[in-house]
Amino acid sequence: MTLQNDVISGLAALVGADVVVAPDAQNVARHSHDFGVPANPSANILALTYPRSTPQVSAILKFCNERRIAVQPQGGMTGLAGGGVPLGPCVVLSLERMRTIKELDVAAGTITVEAGVVMEAVQKAADAADLFFPLDLGGRGSCQIGGNLSTNAGGNRVLRFGMARDLVLGVEAVLADGTVIDAMRKVIKNNTGYDLRQLFIGAEGTLGIITGVVLRLFPKPRSVNTGICALENYAGILELLRRARLGFGAQLTAFEVMWPDFYELGTVGLGRKPPLALGHPVYVLLETMGQDPDADSQRYETVIGEALEAGVVKDAIIAKSGRESTDLWTVRDSPGEWTRTPHWPQLGFDVSVPTGEIESLMTEIEAELNRRWPQLKTVYFGHVADGNLHASVRMNGHSVPELDIEDAVYGIVSRRKGSISAEHGIGSLKRKFLSYSRSPAELALMRAIKQAMDPNGILNPGKVL
Amino acid sequence: MTLQNDVISGLAALVGADVVVAPDAQNVARHSHDFGVPANPSANILALTYPRSTPQVSAILKFCNERRIAVQPQGGMTGLAGGGVPLGPCVVLSLERMRTIKELDVAAGTITVEAGVVMEAVQKAADAADLFFPLDLGGRGSCQIGGNLSTNAGGNRVLRFGMARDLVLGVEAVLADGTVIDAMRKVIKNNTGYDLRQLFIGAEGTLGIITGVVLRLFPKPRSVNTGICALENYAGILELLRRARLGFGAQLTAFEVMWPDFYELGTVGLGRKPPLALGHPVYVLLETMGQDPDADSQRYETVIGEALEAGVVKDAIIAKSGRESTDLWTVRDSPGEWTRTPHWPQLGFDVSVPTGEIESLMTEIEAELNRRWPQLKTVYFGHVADGNLHASVRMNGHSVPELDIEDAVYGIVSRRKGSISAEHGIGSLKRKFLSYSRSPAELALMRAIKQAMDPNGILNPGKVL
Repeated sequence: MTLQNDVISGLAALVGADVVVAPDAQNVARHSHDFGVPANPSANILALTYPRSTPQVSAILKFCNERRIAVQPQGGMTGLAGGGVPLGPCVVLSLERMRTIKELDVAAGTITVEAGVVMEAVQKAADAADLFFPLDLGGRGSCQIGGNLSTNAGGNRVLRFGMARDLVLGVEAVLADGTVIDAMRKVIKNNTGYDLRQLFIGAEGTLGIITGVVLRLFPKPRSVNTGICALENYAGILELLRRARLGFGAQLTAFEVMWPDFYELGTVGLGRKPPLALGHPVYVLLETMGQDPDADSQRYETVIGEALEAGVVKDAIIAKSGRESTDLWTVRDSPGEWTRTPHWPQLGFDVSVPTGEIESLMTEIEAELNRRWPQLKTVYFGHVADGNLHASVRMNGHSVPELDIEDAVYGIVSRRKGSISAEHGIGSLKRKFLSYSRSPAELALMRAIKQAMDPNGILNPGKVL
Repeated sequence: MTLQNDVISGLAALVGADVVVAPDAQNVARHSHDFGVPANPSANILALTYPRSTPQVSAILKFCNERRIAVQPQGGMTGLAGGGVPLGPCVVLSLERMRTIKELDVAAGTITVEAGVVMEAVQKAADAADLFFPLDLGGRGSCQIGGNLSTNAGGNRVLRFGMARDLVLGVEAVLADGTVIDAMRKVIKNNTGYDLRQLFIGAEGTLGIITGVVLRLFPKPRSVNTGICALENYAGILELLRRARLGFGAQLTAFEVMWPDFYELGTVGLGRKPPLALGHPVYVLLETMGQDPDADSQRYETVIGEALEAGVVKDAIIAKSGRESTDLWTVRDSPGEWTRTPHWPQLGFDVSVPTGEIESLMTEIEAELNRRWPQLKTVYFGHVADGNLHASVRMNGHSVPELDIEDAVYGIVSRRKGSISAEHGIGSLKRKFLSYSRSPAELALMRAIKQAMDPNGILNPGKVL
């Protein structure tokens, strides 16, 4: 325990005893797993640190870098790929105390926050200023902005507003050696050399630790229109998407496709009446946001109505109130409730290919899984306009090794030049499959960047690369 | 001339004699300057290469890297900061023969092109497919997509569609040692490790040479509304911007502010009748794009009408036809015609600060320039919603050193944490001022990245860093 005592006393001397905590059963349990990956038996947390400021983060990193001690950065621990899960001896660096909203600039349309601020707090601060922060996902109440950036979070509104990367104007990050990179600018345009912000976004804490962020805010939408359409086939989906893009333009915020087994599971499977009858070959939830309530709802009805008349859409239901809209979204958001259904435990996939190839990807996956493991049952859904397909394989009662299923699915995605992780990141969970989406030349360049920025490899070891 | 002969014969043996051209007065003249920076007297072009394929680019780079010969990448040479201008002994690598449009995918909303494709060709291909490529700037007829990405080009529609960086899904680039990084994916979402594309975008060819691009396309707008408003002061501009954002949402595509001297220069200064009377303290051109012609024009009139009633806008003119819209844009685009006015030659600035600070920035610049050089005359205009101010200093007949003026203006921008180059890049022109916008820690990290990716420093030496 000498190393542990040395680390705790050394760090406490630098940043104060209140920032450094010795591991015990309770705090170790809290800091050892995320939503998708359990605690690792070989993890060994030497100390937990809760810095209150960027200089404290810098001091902790410098200390650890000089001693070659691994640092495990942590946000809200809502990830699904183990990006924040300790794997070996390490100092945990949690951003949870850095949760100050520093400024909201209405004219610039920006909010400046510390990395530990919870996503929902940003959404609420924007709303109070009659503005809108569009990034949104299930973990909104506990995930932190620093983690959202580190994993380049997506969510339901990527179609219109992009991934987390697209919502960032400024970043402050601390390098492995304690150097503070202050790129906290509130400007949209800045063509002065390399865009260093991008190195930290989506890097899962392996190139530096994000400590501050300047985010873009948008005008608060004044109208939301939601509906579900039933269609005959995937060609119909592509035609409806074409019409929706042309008819709604930038107002189109969601185009969520649900195949029949998913639709059934998310309605009658949870004891709810389906908004449209079961039995259609495919369903789409469409959402628009705009600034002109009357014109926007009329336009929504026109576009869907024309698609009905043209025979593209076979049946449709349009929400007439916020409550009805919530009910429609409940179907799409049902995976959060699957623990109550026989479709549990499940093995989830989050892959992407170009939008036009989603059906053939699905067909290929389904054929391969059926051929090799006919006892498994898979349901499909996705942010199809983003080219993002989710597949959920029911594991209950079967002994098929997950690795074999992953290898099969990722192999198919790889041959189509798709992404094995559209949203969730690589972490430790998908590390062994990274080469399915990235070439040897890309991996070599990633390693060269990692080597240049973290030569001792102290930052989040065992993740991504 | 031995080195030159060796280089030409060595390269010709690798990639074919038709790809490698010996320098002569004519081709050297064509490849030695851009729109903003003249030929450099110490430049020494050893050979000009016009590869037709990525493997040829790779072979040329590998050859030069092994011999430590500098490579000067070139696109359409429409830049303003000298990014493509040779400075010493080098091999010119022009992408102009790589101009194949490889695929347009309607469902995915993407176009896949070689780097030498001219911007306007992308715009036209998108238009023919009922889609829209929003990146647009004056050099559209000759600038190339590879150059647009390398300089992270901006233009008039950044407010809605972002910079070039925001329009890119995939990139293929060749590293200094000839390694091909193939990240030509057509997927929007791809969280599999570091986003290597970002390293090449905005790096001005110093980290690799972009050879291929997958670009995002958007629904073709069905309506465009344009108008010019006259306002009393900058507070009014911010209030109009607030109203425009809330009223138009994502339909707002341009918010261009013109101060009185600029407005006069762009109208009566060019012998044209001003669309709104001279004498107002400030003018704004607003443009919206949408999918619903009737509702969109009504909404435009409503938002401007309400601003008039509230006294925010003092006078307004709204274009009633495409031709009237073009006429209004002529005022904003008048800098392209300034060679016909007494406001020439000029020293142009392209800086950014947060939108709310534009007026105080302008006031501070104006006071400083007036104090030190009262003989100079400066006009101001800008993409104010993007925080981007252009200042144009009339140099005609004065002997003030440009470097002194630049030092004064960039010093003010630096103290406000702004960008000394919002759109145009650094190249060779602003290299000595890079530290005015980037900290020593940022510059050190940029150098570490450069060293990791181009250890022999052959790629575009003397630029950016």
